[in-house]
Amino acid sequence: MRPLQVSLDQVIQNLLNSKKYSSLRDMLIIMNPSDIASLFQDLPVDSLPLLFRLLPKELAADTFVEMDEEMQELLIQGFSDRELKEVINELYVDDAVDLVEEMPASVVKRILRQAAPEMRKMINDILKYPEDSAGSMMTTEYVSLHPQMNVSQALSRIRQTGVDKETIYNCYVITPDRKLCGIVSARSLLLSSEQALIEDIMESHVISVNTMMDQEEVALMFNKYNFLALPVVDQENRLVGIVTVDDAMDVLQEETTEDMEKMAAIVPSERPYLKTGIFATFRQRIPWLLVLMISATASSMIITAFEDALAAQVALTAFIPMLMNTGGNSGSQASVTIIRGLSLNEIQYKDFFKVLWKEIRVGVLCGVTLAAANYVKLLLLDRVSFLIAAAVCLTLVLTVILSKIVGALLPMGAKKIGLDPAVMASPFISTIVDILSLLVYFQIATLLLGL
Amino acid sequence: MRPLQVSLDQVIQNLLNSKKYSSLRDMLIIMNPSDIASLFQDLPVDSLPLLFRLLPKELAADTFVEMDEEMQELLIQGFSDRELKEVINELYVDDAVDLVEEMPASVVKRILRQAAPEMRKMINDILKYPEDSAGSMMTTEYVSLHPQMNVSQALSRIRQTGVDKETIYNCYVITPDRKLCGIVSARSLLLSSEQALIEDIMESHVISVNTMMDQEEVALMFNKYNFLALPVVDQENRLVGIVTVDDAMDVLQEETTEDMEKMAAIVPSERPYLKTGIFATFRQRIPWLLVLMISATASSMIITAFEDALAAQVALTAFIPMLMNTGGNSGSQASVTIIRGLSLNEIQYKDFFKVLWKEIRVGVLCGVTLAAANYVKLLLLDRVSFLIAAAVCLTLVLTVILSKIVGALLPMGAKKIGLDPAVMASPFISTIVDILSLLVYFQIATLLLGL
Repeated sequence: MRPLQVSLDQVIQNLLNSKKYSSLRDMLIIMNPSDIASLFQDLPVDSLPLLFRLLPKELAADTFVEMDEEMQELLIQGFSDRELKEVINELYVDDAVDLVEEMPASVVKRILRQAAPEMRKMINDILKYPEDSAGSMMTTEYVSLHPQMNVSQALSRIRQTGVDKETIYNCYVITPDRKLCGIVSARSLLLSSEQALIEDIMESHVISVNTMMDQEEVALMFNKYNFLALPVVDQENRLVGIVTVDDAMDVLQEETTEDMEKMAAIVPSERPYLKTGIFATFRQRIPWLLVLMISATASSMIITAFEDALAAQVALTAFIPMLMNTGGNSGSQASVTIIRGLSLNEIQYKDFFKVLWKEIRVGVLCGVTLAAANYVKLLLLDRVSFLIAAAVCLTLVLTVILSKIVGALLPMGAKKIGLDPAVMASPFISTIVDILSLLVYFQIATLLLGL
Repeated sequence: MRPLQVSLDQVIQNLLNSKKYSSLRDMLIIMNPSDIASLFQDLPVDSLPLLFRLLPKELAADTFVEMDEEMQELLIQGFSDRELKEVINELYVDDAVDLVEEMPASVVKRILRQAAPEMRKMINDILKYPEDSAGSMMTTEYVSLHPQMNVSQALSRIRQTGVDKETIYNCYVITPDRKLCGIVSARSLLLSSEQALIEDIMESHVISVNTMMDQEEVALMFNKYNFLALPVVDQENRLVGIVTVDDAMDVLQEETTEDMEKMAAIVPSERPYLKTGIFATFRQRIPWLLVLMISATASSMIITAFEDALAAQVALTAFIPMLMNTGGNSGSQASVTIIRGLSLNEIQYKDFFKVLWKEIRVGVLCGVTLAAANYVKLLLLDRVSFLIAAAVCLTLVLTVILSKIVGALLPMGAKKIGLDPAVMASPFISTIVDILSLLVYFQIATLLLGL
């Protein structure tokens, strides 16, 4: 399961060049759609339509879903209307919706024109829900059963209608007015007697989500409850769709990447790094760099205010980077821990004082340890005067404690007022901690050294 | 699906106090094991054994799995041998293994004594594999079929043996010498005719993983291929177990948290923040703080070396924090992007030069933009001399470019030599960038201002 070898590309390239299409087809049809899509990625674009046409209908659709937007758009532009129709109507509706959301308007028009009326209706239904909601990530293709059916009737219903459904492992039991009243797993169908009634074997305490729930919350529920699928209901508890575990995993992955980007002062993007142009990457990075650079004016002003003091004791300047860095690192440790805890629901706002008290104590431990180590180093290695060493070490203790407090409280405060805590990570924390550490440093230096 | 209301705790507490056990049982049995475990977490520990005994056998085992270690240990210590036996033998073997790995030795002895011989053998088999390997996260409870069976025989085999299996949705087809030769999903069993032979409907191009594969790689395969389960084979392609999607999600979550912790210069731990004592948190945080603090000595030495220059031009000192911060932030942006890309396999080592070239160009764009903004600010707002403004802005351009290069290359280099790229994040990068930016700054200042 190592990453694909280059040689495979070359084999395909050679087969393509010598027009051995049936051998190519034999090679491709035993592969997983996701691997075929990766392979296609590395081949010359002009051979794609040809290669794609070699795939059997269902494999073609599954492979299409795994491709990135550029390749999808390229293929669609090369498709005849008949080919487009075939691919679109073979897709699961949630994948069709993703496609429609990503393609430019002209392509979307063609897609919707070629979609079967039923497919078009399902696509439009899902498109109504806000981005990042449970409604927007669900599929409307699921197996529904009625409470009065018996197991054998249910199984034959699955056999009749199951082919097109994204999962048949959870079947949803609904009343005549489409209210969700239970769930039956394929497992219990297979393990129950053929005469048993669905209402007797169904799980009637159903955990469901509302169409408007945030997709990250939905994804975290999969993690918590180990579900394979989760029903989505409207305000009246009518079943409108289901979310499956593979989509939940994708959402978790995306949201984590987004969090990490925010934590590094990057404006998040959904495109992979190597697929993003340099101007797009520049636009992701420059806003926060500018804001943080301007904010650092505060540090400059503090230093300017204490210019005379510094001129009198130039040795003090040498320790500014170390103090700011250590403060920044201490603050980041606290903020990253809290941000992650908040996003996994391991920490809640009600834990505010518990967190604060814990960070103060950890801050004291870290601060004192660092100051002690530094004191020895300052006197033995740097050979500074006793008073300067004392000023540096006292500042260190206070800075570390302050940093831990700031690093823990800013993310919690952000969450409380409805901001994303992830923004309150290293870069932002460092800027604040810099200001605090300089103020503390000069204050202490002024007192001890009588500047 | 909001987090549980406090009132539920209170209801249970009241029912407990008034000894309404049958009502309590009625309340609990309709809940999901994961919710019951969260509820128990908030109740007084001495009521746990009693509450736990109210649960039916299977629900009790499922709830037990969802509890944290302390509660599990506490319960086990309160269990009679018969109770322990019941819970242990009701567990799926991978959960039993997790339990054995987490409990202290004395508890493990009791667990293994009470486990049925078959369960004990399975636990010991899995314990042989290294931590974090596919073997250690797999379960040995799966449905196996033979190629010559027909669908109806396969279904009746599932009915007979499926109850104890973690999943029946993927069945594994093995030859008499246990070699894995195919996979049949419950879906194709249900959708095929009863007479069809397994070997005709099975998928024979099986994607499997080796027992020794790293668990993060395994988990990422679930993401890539949208599997519900993945077979684990030994060196001779004999089937030894399966990994299920719920465990893959847990691994992804854990590995992401671990990455974030490393990126914030924290020694990773598997315990949630609020469950970690302050000394444990201190031990997670102090090592890197110490290392990075000592490393900052280099910055101090550079400043000391240029002490006379600084004394002559005190205004230069004021911009040190801004330069170091902007450099650090620029480097973090690059490093976090690359670290995430590497861990999702979106970036590989072969992309080295592509990444380098991209970061240089983005670095130039960001550097020039920041310098231009800063130049205006320096002249209009800070009213520094033209030469000082020029020195600061030139340094800014070079620092940002250098930071982007360092931020991108260190994680890739770490990966190449087998280190975890996540360590090469903000804190480490900042320390290096500080040194670089100071060197550049003083060099340029010396040249321009003739210090």
